[in-house]
Amino acid sequence: MNNTDPFVEEPVDTHEEIMYATFAALQEYGYAELSIQYIADEVQLSKSTLYHHFTDKDDLILSFLQFLLNKMEGKCQYSQFDNPKRKILQIVDRVLEGNITPQPSSEGAIMASYIELRAQAIRNPTHREPITEADQQFVEQVATLIEAGIRQGVFQTVDPEETAEFLLAMLHGIIIQSITRHDGPLPQLQSALKNYLRAELFLNPS
Amino acid sequence: MNNTDPFVEEPVDTHEEIMYATFAALQEYGYAELSIQYIADEVQLSKSTLYHHFTDKDDLILSFLQFLLNKMEGKCQYSQFDNPKRKILQIVDRVLEGNITPQPSSEGAIMASYIELRAQAIRNPTHREPITEADQQFVEQVATLIEAGIRQGVFQTVDPEETAEFLLAMLHGIIIQSITRHDGPLPQLQSALKNYLRAELFLNPS
Repeated sequence: MNNTDPFVEEPVDTHEEIMYATFAALQEYGYAELSIQYIADEVQLSKSTLYHHFTDKDDLILSFLQFLLNKMEGKCQYSQFDNPKRKILQIVDRVLEGNITPQPSSEGAIMASYIELRAQAIRNPTHREPITEADQQFVEQVATLIEAGIRQGVFQTVDPEETAEFLLAMLHGIIIQSITRHDGPLPQLQSALKNYLRAELFLNPS
Repeated sequence: MNNTDPFVEEPVDTHEEIMYATFAALQEYGYAELSIQYIADEVQLSKSTLYHHFTDKDDLILSFLQFLLNKMEGKCQYSQFDNPKRKILQIVDRVLEGNITPQPSSEGAIMASYIELRAQAIRNPTHREPITEADQQFVEQVATLIEAGIRQGVFQTVDPEETAEFLLAMLHGIIIQSITRHDGPLPQLQSALKNYLRAELFLNPS
């Protein structure tokens, strides 16, 4: 695991311990086979202790999804907006880094769990709430960065919000392609995305 | 349901009947809750008849995934390559058409089932085979169309395969965004994708 991995630090409390155990159980069993018992076994707590924290599997999964989204969000946040070109490329690399492949490890495993849970939101309206909120935060953050780039004269005059939305969709498309195919399209797609940014967003292509 | 819906025609044989029933059961229960019993109930066959056709739930789901991919593939196939610009825009509209939203109906439901099953391939190598094959066929088809556009002088001189791969990833990104959020990003993303095509692929932007 590398330093940016949200699961590299020791859990600070029982809630975080359960989150780590949920991540481990998800990796081992997948959402469809996941049970409270498996998570309890992983964290070495009783099922009844888990039911003290969460009403049911769905409640626990929702909590885990929020935990995961918070952790991922940290990777794309900036308080300063100098060098927006480098920062946009950093966001792309951070989201796509770490061996995003089928049966991944480390960062790739986080993306795999994330996409697996995100797909559950197709039929679960409750899960759409934190997902939509996290997406909106990403879009807001990236749109602010794009506005700064336009102001600084290093980005073309694009619609910041539409471009940020499109970038987020492209990142999701690249991740889902990369973790569900066996012919490894990630390098080509990552390169295509950077070419898109150079052509459509950056001024003075480098 | 509209005319392009793969499930609008009467099933031609028992296999297709089971595929239709699997689609209905998937819509009702989702992959995680799906059982052979639910599908048997839906198609009004006994569980043992289903086990005569498929070894287990996973085998049936794999067969359904292949069925779905074949049906979807038909929407993006061309034997003639006149007017490549219109054809590329048609592919975008066909893939994204039909109310792709959470809790969708008709075409949207097919995309929802497709993404839900595609996400299973994260942990199921067997499912990656037909997915990779279908993606490669899409890329080949679209790359041929792009080559024709370049030859006809209506497209810019891009890398046809990379552009087709990138388009496929963008379509997947747009679909997963649209069916897992509650704030309806589809129209904006569809428009952003067409702007991308006009700027990066088409000559004489229209």
